[in-house]
Amino acid sequence: MQLSKIYRLVSRDLNRVDARIMSVSEVAFPRHREMLEHCLTSGGKRVRPALNLLSGHVFNYNVERLLPMAAAIEMMHTATLVHDDAIDKSRVRRNQDTVYGLWGEETAVLLGDFLFAKAGEMSTDTGSLRAVRLFTQTLEMISTGEIIQADSAFKLMQPREDYIKRIAYKTASLFALSTETGAILSDAPETAVTALRDYGYYMGVAFQLVDDVLDYTSTEAEMGKPIGSDLFQGTLTLPAMLLLDLYPEDNPIRTLFEQHRELDQVAQQELSARALEMVRQSNIAANCLSLADDYSRRSVACLGELPDGPAKKALADLVVYLITRRT
Amino acid sequence: MQLSKIYRLVSRDLNRVDARIMSVSEVAFPRHREMLEHCLTSGGKRVRPALNLLSGHVFNYNVERLLPMAAAIEMMHTATLVHDDAIDKSRVRRNQDTVYGLWGEETAVLLGDFLFAKAGEMSTDTGSLRAVRLFTQTLEMISTGEIIQADSAFKLMQPREDYIKRIAYKTASLFALSTETGAILSDAPETAVTALRDYGYYMGVAFQLVDDVLDYTSTEAEMGKPIGSDLFQGTLTLPAMLLLDLYPEDNPIRTLFEQHRELDQVAQQELSARALEMVRQSNIAANCLSLADDYSRRSVACLGELPDGPAKKALADLVVYLITRRT
Repeated sequence: MQLSKIYRLVSRDLNRVDARIMSVSEVAFPRHREMLEHCLTSGGKRVRPALNLLSGHVFNYNVERLLPMAAAIEMMHTATLVHDDAIDKSRVRRNQDTVYGLWGEETAVLLGDFLFAKAGEMSTDTGSLRAVRLFTQTLEMISTGEIIQADSAFKLMQPREDYIKRIAYKTASLFALSTETGAILSDAPETAVTALRDYGYYMGVAFQLVDDVLDYTSTEAEMGKPIGSDLFQGTLTLPAMLLLDLYPEDNPIRTLFEQHRELDQVAQQELSARALEMVRQSNIAANCLSLADDYSRRSVACLGELPDGPAKKALADLVVYLITRRT
Repeated sequence: MQLSKIYRLVSRDLNRVDARIMSVSEVAFPRHREMLEHCLTSGGKRVRPALNLLSGHVFNYNVERLLPMAAAIEMMHTATLVHDDAIDKSRVRRNQDTVYGLWGEETAVLLGDFLFAKAGEMSTDTGSLRAVRLFTQTLEMISTGEIIQADSAFKLMQPREDYIKRIAYKTASLFALSTETGAILSDAPETAVTALRDYGYYMGVAFQLVDDVLDYTSTEAEMGKPIGSDLFQGTLTLPAMLLLDLYPEDNPIRTLFEQHRELDQVAQQELSARALEMVRQSNIAANCLSLADDYSRRSVACLGELPDGPAKKALADLVVYLITRRT
């Protein structure tokens, strides 16, 4: 099923979300405007605003309250990517130069801060302190997840639960915010708010599991950014963990992580390419996707008690679309 | 007059602000806690929370509403310093190692993000969407000021108005937020909200003017961080502008800015030391302080219509204290 079909119910309003986001680039200082136009038009699937609007559609859909939250959520996501790229020194994302690549680290940090602030301001346009509060708490979770990830970089021994916890903080929290505030701003009953939050949470975990597999199995052309980047950053994702389980001793990831300070870039690239090849030759991707499938089922199960209709159907279809995606 | 005397009216509540800020370090992940404890205890004059509480004291002082805003403002300030240090690669501030110095750039960026988020969450504890909104708008102004400053780094030709605009964005905006929300959360009439906002704004400009002079005339021991750092970052502050006016041709700042890419660190330090010496030998500091004095008078003038009392007196005394300070 095509994404545009799943989004059908809210596609016009998603364009309004885009317009709202673009309005943020209307600032006085020309260079600042140029930077904002660049990073606010860089595209993406707009999954989070779509989740927000579709969740609202299950109840009393009020686009004037949802619009600012959907835009704020997408902007918070953009801001975290701008900071991530500065930290990881990534020059390309979605086949485009990053803010870091074009203007350097200082600008990336400051522009990210500006976007966080604008996103926060926009969240207040919902008129709901509860939604604003959840918004700020989500940024706390995302940055906590990133701090934990940075601290565990290049460490080989990491429990599986820590990995799930990390992706829950880093990714699932923002999915859960999208669906929970969609429900809140549409006057959903509290049981439905919880159900939609959990739906978003489980879907976020499934989404990131797939993302982490694609970093091993996809191509640079498909992903719009270099493949194998997690290994390069020293981030141990589930495919790497499973490969270490399979080959505990002679394993390119072990060598890469233990000796990353001494190895030159070519040697690192060779080890990383070997690890990718070994993952592809194994059933690791299938195992990871099977776990993603478990989470996606839990996600869909949360929709059970919600009123039937096209919005609920779209939310269920979106889960299937996202976990079977190739990019 | 001593700062403790000026703060007398709110000193007990300032301790509560400190406690509220420290509570933020109670997080699950030990390394994260350690980082937060470090950067939240690093001291400072607590001018901004004091301004917030004292402004509230002019009207219906409600500490339960002011406390979270005072803490949120100080934390936003801390977060901006954590990011600034990462950007400037500053290893020491207030005689302490910076987050950047201790844990590196990645941690500094992420921890700053976490602090912004926590500060935002705390601002929602005021129960006032208006105050939260002003809070987010202020972070927009601060980061805009920093973006403009970064973009104008090492540029010699900069109009005087741009300098004032920059420090207004970067510094005065947060002072104005402190006083404006202090008034709002104490049910001050709108004319008083405006008067207190303007008081904070003019005081912020005066404060930063003095700060920029101290970067030329103070000592590392007094300031708790290296002197002449603005020149090193390529930031043209008012003392540098005035020195360029005095000596348009043969000027160490001209050489430093035009050739900073080619010069080694020793050569840069020599040029910077010469510039500092030339400023000290001139009447530039006196001229800058005279401008700071103009702004401080405008600041105090804004208090004119407010109800007399110890809070108003403390606010007036604080202006005098801050523009005559040595550190």
